[in-house]
Amino acid sequence: MSELSVKHLLGIKYLKEQDIQLIFETADHFKEVINRSIKKVPSLRDITIANVFFENSTRTKLSFELAEKRLSADVINFSAAQSSVKKGETLIDTVNNILSMKVDMVVMRHPNPGAGIFLSKHVKASIVNAGDGAHEHPTQALLDSYSIREKLGDVAGKKVVIVGDILHSRVALSNIFALKLQGAHVKVCGPKTLIPKYIESLGVEVETNLIKALNWCDVANMLRIQNERLDISYFPTTREYTQQYGVNKKILDSLDKEIVIMHPGPINRGVEITSDVADSKQSIILNQVENGVAIRMAVLYLLASKIK
Amino acid sequence: MSELSVKHLLGIKYLKEQDIQLIFETADHFKEVINRSIKKVPSLRDITIANVFFENSTRTKLSFELAEKRLSADVINFSAAQSSVKKGETLIDTVNNILSMKVDMVVMRHPNPGAGIFLSKHVKASIVNAGDGAHEHPTQALLDSYSIREKLGDVAGKKVVIVGDILHSRVALSNIFALKLQGAHVKVCGPKTLIPKYIESLGVEVETNLIKALNWCDVANMLRIQNERLDISYFPTTREYTQQYGVNKKILDSLDKEIVIMHPGPINRGVEITSDVADSKQSIILNQVENGVAIRMAVLYLLASKIK
Amino acid sequence: MSELSVKHLLGIKYLKEQDIQLIFETADHFKEVINRSIKKVPSLRDITIANVFFENSTRTKLSFELAEKRLSADVINFSAAQSSVKKGETLIDTVNNILSMKVDMVVMRHPNPGAGIFLSKHVKASIVNAGDGAHEHPTQALLDSYSIREKLGDVAGKKVVIVGDILHSRVALSNIFALKLQGAHVKVCGPKTLIPKYIESLGVEVETNLIKALNWCDVANMLRIQNERLDISYFPTTREYTQQYGVNKKILDSLDKEIVIMHPGPINRGVEITSDVADSKQSIILNQVENGVAIRMAVLYLLASKIK
Repeated sequence: MSELSVKHLLGIKYLKEQDIQLIFETADHFKEVINRSIKKVPSLRDITIANVFFENSTRTKLSFELAEKRLSADVINFSAAQSSVKKGETLIDTVNNILSMKVDMVVMRHPNPGAGIFLSKHVKASIVNAGDGAHEHPTQALLDSYSIREKLGDVAGKKVVIVGDILHSRVALSNIFALKLQGAHVKVCGPKTLIPKYIESLGVEVETNLIKALNWCDVANMLRIQNERLDISYFPTTREYTQQYGVNKKILDSLDKEIVIMHPGPINRGVEITSDVADSKQSIILNQVENGVAIRMAVLYLLASKIK
Repeated sequence: MSELSVKHLLGIKYLKEQDIQLIFETADHFKEVINRSIKKVPSLRDITIANVFFENSTRTKLSFELAEKRLSADVINFSAAQSSVKKGETLIDTVNNILSMKVDMVVMRHPNPGAGIFLSKHVKASIVNAGDGAHEHPTQALLDSYSIREKLGDVAGKKVVIVGDILHSRVALSNIFALKLQGAHVKVCGPKTLIPKYIESLGVEVETNLIKALNWCDVANMLRIQNERLDISYFPTTREYTQQYGVNKKILDSLDKEIVIMHPGPINRGVEITSDVADSKQSIILNQVENGVAIRMAVLYLLASKIK
Repeated sequence: MSELSVKHLLGIKYLKEQDIQLIFETADHFKEVINRSIKKVPSLRDITIANVFFENSTRTKLSFELAEKRLSADVINFSAAQSSVKKGETLIDTVNNILSMKVDMVVMRHPNPGAGIFLSKHVKASIVNAGDGAHEHPTQALLDSYSIREKLGDVAGKKVVIVGDILHSRVALSNIFALKLQGAHVKVCGPKTLIPKYIESLGVEVETNLIKALNWCDVANMLRIQNERLDISYFPTTREYTQQYGVNKKILDSLDKEIVIMHPGPINRGVEITSDVADSKQSIILNQVENGVAIRMAVLYLLASKIK
């Protein structure tokens, strides 16, 4: 296969397994190029990409921007307060305006689940979903799987546990789709109030006991806890969360085997994981960040080749 | 004529008819280039342009930025809160500081009418007015006329009605100057409280009845209504505005002929025009956005040729 | 000497006299290139620089950005609210994340004194301090000395008085280090409440009488007064400050000789200096701004040559 089966990257849900392999092989190529200190390739020289962010996201936006610039694309940034976009109609207007300026691709983050899908049906341009509410964050899941593949040789057959607030996490959902598609075994672990009821229908097991989950897995993906979520009554306090679901070095060393620690960032050090875990040899957190640029280069490159 | 009669673009008021024709012919050229998918021309490779925005304006700024980048200019963005610029002296300081860094042109939006004119007398650099209070917004008027010319073949002799809040609108004023200069017939239409008394001295007729205005015109330019203005006592409510001056498909279809619908954006769908009007074949709203980039490329290119 | 003795520019305190001379000679070269209207040199074509600003600073950031772009570096901007960075750990995380994306240099402004030094011990990348609290602002001091050298031929032996709020000023401290290192004579002048007790230990004399200070000096560097500081009880009012430490044309003309007036900007016209002083022939304020870009190009160029 030499091209993606999709015109947009709206979610992992819409990808085939071969799409993921193609993205990974393309990312391999770009990573090798970057490591040879060739910072820029002329691949997207005639392509204009708009980063349209209806939610703040310094890290993801930075990673996309670097990917775009290293592909020699022309980049424009459009940040909109959520308040000014109240109706779907207006979202289409905003994006159609941008596209009328001869923009070829739109990377969009939006607070509403499905915003990218909605948009892809109404505008002519490749849409890359950079996070749509609690729905999907496909490039994050791709870079996560890519980092596992890099560390352990393969994703198929590996045991991955995702720890934290599964209910509100687009990272969790996209990861589950990606991991299952590649043949990994997936469990989720966290307080019952933060695990959605439909999760088992995705072929995922629930394990509320952290130690059991860690002893089972090859990789633990420790999600960031949104403090504002914990303040709500259904789950008590950050301290209680850390006591039950935080990982420290003592826990890590007590396990039967050496597991891999991942985190999508930014880390609440001392909450999800302690500093000695984040900075340990078992952590591949900074590799995830590095791989993020290569994965995004691959996605943009492959989608652009479909619009020419 | 092969060059502009002015060194700055401060307002349509300062242009000659030939200036407008030259800008249009230059825009024709750039538009053709863009449509051939050649995204960048090296015309302004040694020019640095500063976009200095003392008011927020995502769309206009984006359009200028794209125009500048497609001309291969170096672009710097300077956004200043209005609060930090209280005196004309400080405005000169701000811009002189930017110019000292070897900036060649300044694109400025400022809340005070005449800010660009004031500045052009005190600094050495080409100034492009991207909107100065309720005074002028010359590139908007140029792209509007250019879009009429594209749609109807010519501006001279055409009948254009500008509908809405004429009193506070720099778009209206610049459009009136541009249309009259090119020999179009112009009427304004809106509630009496939103039409300034001096308007007839500009050779413009007032028509308070929307249906009569629409039946007269070839083109209706539907201005955006600023809700914050309507909330003030002198004009009742948004709903009343829409009932009297909003255009829907039924009204459009009831007219004697097929008129052209324009809107400077962003549209309040359902207020100035309904969605079926905005998205109808009679609407050239997205063409206006597209032409905006070509017109701004032309203006920047022609002004830059005067500073070399 | 053909290279800097340091890997980072954290403060003037860490530089040798030869470092300053090397930076000045390199800036001479870049200034000459810019004046020949060659806006861009390919020197840093393979270098990615992140501007990480934890405090707002439009002017300094603009100057760095222009310097970076004129060196053909790839530039990414990361602006972070101070609130999101509460612990040193998190600062390291933020910067390590950016560096993982294959960024070579970090230009950082941070409200905490020593933030750059702390960072340089924990991350792999050249750090340029663009202001760390009340500690240092080394590129400002370098451009100030460079502007004196340009105006008066040399810095050694010259008499410089720094007027204003010495206590809270990183500009004052960096200037004192730079001027002393180059053999200038330095006095500070201002209300006693705004002069730190340790100042004389730096080889600097205190002169509270403005006229005496001005009659002594060759150059007066008039610091910007932060109004929010004056509002605090220890120093009465802006008006009183101006009466005692503001410079107007009458004062300037009454002096025995023609002194040079400097200001780091932005000027509070009528507070530190009046408009006729700011705009007089004795003022080199706009030269400072112009030289800022050349100095920053020199610093970035010299540091980059050490990381290749």
